[in-house]
Amino acid sequence: MMQHRPLHIATAIAALTFAFGAPGHAAEQEPIQPLEAAKITNPAKVELGKQLFFDPRLSRSGFISCNSCHNLSMGGSDNFKSSVGDRWAQGGIRSPTVLNASLNLAQFWDGRAKDLAEQASGPIANPIEMGSTHAEAEKTLNTIPGYRTEFKKIYSVDKIGIAQVTDAIAAFEATLITPNSRFDKWLKGDKKALTDHELSGYKLFKDSGCVSCHNGPAVGGNSYQKMGLVNEYKTSNPATGRAGVTGNDVERMMFKVPTLRNVELLPPYFHDGSASTLAEAVDTMGWVQLGKKFTADETARIVAFLKTLTGDQPRFALPQLPPSSDSTPRPDPFAKVASNK
Amino acid sequence: MMQHRPLHIATAIAALTFAFGAPGHAAEQEPIQPLEAAKITNPAKVELGKQLFFDPRLSRSGFISCNSCHNLSMGGSDNFKSSVGDRWAQGGIRSPTVLNASLNLAQFWDGRAKDLAEQASGPIANPIEMGSTHAEAEKTLNTIPGYRTEFKKIYSVDKIGIAQVTDAIAAFEATLITPNSRFDKWLKGDKKALTDHELSGYKLFKDSGCVSCHNGPAVGGNSYQKMGLVNEYKTSNPATGRAGVTGNDVERMMFKVPTLRNVELLPPYFHDGSASTLAEAVDTMGWVQLGKKFTADETARIVAFLKTLTGDQPRFALPQLPPSSDSTPRPDPFAKVASNK
Repeated sequence: MMQHRPLHIATAIAALTFAFGAPGHAAEQEPIQPLEAAKITNPAKVELGKQLFFDPRLSRSGFISCNSCHNLSMGGSDNFKSSVGDRWAQGGIRSPTVLNASLNLAQFWDGRAKDLAEQASGPIANPIEMGSTHAEAEKTLNTIPGYRTEFKKIYSVDKIGIAQVTDAIAAFEATLITPNSRFDKWLKGDKKALTDHELSGYKLFKDSGCVSCHNGPAVGGNSYQKMGLVNEYKTSNPATGRAGVTGNDVERMMFKVPTLRNVELLPPYFHDGSASTLAEAVDTMGWVQLGKKFTADETARIVAFLKTLTGDQPRFALPQLPPSSDSTPRPDPFAKVASNK
Repeated sequence: MMQHRPLHIATAIAALTFAFGAPGHAAEQEPIQPLEAAKITNPAKVELGKQLFFDPRLSRSGFISCNSCHNLSMGGSDNFKSSVGDRWAQGGIRSPTVLNASLNLAQFWDGRAKDLAEQASGPIANPIEMGSTHAEAEKTLNTIPGYRTEFKKIYSVDKIGIAQVTDAIAAFEATLITPNSRFDKWLKGDKKALTDHELSGYKLFKDSGCVSCHNGPAVGGNSYQKMGLVNEYKTSNPATGRAGVTGNDVERMMFKVPTLRNVELLPPYFHDGSASTLAEAVDTMGWVQLGKKFTADETARIVAFLKTLTGDQPRFALPQLPPSSDSTPRPDPFAKVASNK
């Protein structure tokens, strides 16, 4: 995903330059750019990554796959305040969507993973997520003949390693772009794609300053910002954001700005999932980030605009996973903890 | 599914009549008949049922869907000794595959549901499975505009009820037939579809009497038999089989004979999942059901035959679920139990 970043920073600068363009202008003058469908250069690798994304055998229990918390049937997330992990462990933070995640400047809310491959290695070995280890995941995959054949073909390896596993998952995830939203159609010149109500919401979104953070093709994902910039954001969630990564207390409560693409599909909102509805999220953002109290009508207009950002969802055949062999471990979700050591 | 049953009984009788036909005979002389792909007469209903099958909002937690335990990426089951349910509850029995389940004479290991629709209503409201109630599931679905539109179109109802929900799920499940296995190709006249080794396994499967229970298009699923017919079957699993349904102690340990279609994909084996491999399952069946001790070579031949029963797995686009609305409950997997009453 590294190759996206220089391009993306340039885009963000361009976006800010034109942040106050009026609706109706040509796309290049708008602070948001249309998404373009991902170009698939290595379909075999993408297919392999898709299988791994759906394979619960990467988890200790054999029950949890990447798709469990990044459900591609419902916007690429689980839509909980905190995720369900191994043995029903409670996660610490709202699961971010994997849709358009390749456009983020880094991964996780606190940006602690530099790219999708680094991100993918985290949950597999996190005791409250998939609860396995990289060594266990590798051991399991190496007993599955179908995987060995595919990894050999794609990576020229006799033994599957975690680096190839996360590379393939990242290659699949990079395809999860959602183009052709109504807003993108409007950006590309179809002036009938939005209603006046929605357009007035977009104008308000820009004029109010939302766009200073939510810009670029992903309408976010390209900067860290403090949650509670103007007014304090109260939460019982203990996440500290960037400060937890850099150790720099100045970055306390600085989180990656989430993409607003497909945001209609993704309640509840914020890193703590505290906003149940888009209207609630818009009101809170207006107050804590911008010091504004939106009227009900203003909120409704912005919400109407946000709903135009829902694009084409991923469309692919449900993957069929290569069968286990006799030597593949038979996972026991209920095994005593000690037996997993 | 009712319409399948009379046909199926006739098929079973025909199968028994020809149970001792030698390999190489025409398909109609064999005790196993080829599967034919399901005919889809109401694609909109099947699509709706597919969405419901993948929708975790039918569960209390919002985390568990039908596909969680009947995973269509891996043979239509979870492949555990016992399934993971709400709050990681441990299920009592091996989750049966949903593939070709429409061919079963009844549903569940003990046949307590007469058809797929009746089956589908069970797990939704089972506290150790999806952990919801029919009333809660209906309430949730009625807040989802996309579902209301589809149910209105297909069932002419303004309010979605559990009867339509399970009918749609059953319509989808009835499409999950797996034709075109190598064995079916052989049955249909392609004599090169099987190796001599596999064919000798089939002959042994018939000559040893396996076929007296595992026959018909599903290679099982059409009778109840006592587990431990000749020699005692020892298990710590407390399931009592048909006796638990009928109250008749004579039917103790009588279970529905499972289909052997796709059996390669479905370890561990038996209602208690006690056999980790196909070889182990064949050995145990030979001893407890037939009083035979297969040699290693005999077991290997039967296993080779069984692996030819893997057919075309379901191929369809991962469904996209209709979005929740502002009034859709936001599930909390970690809610205190009391709050769910």
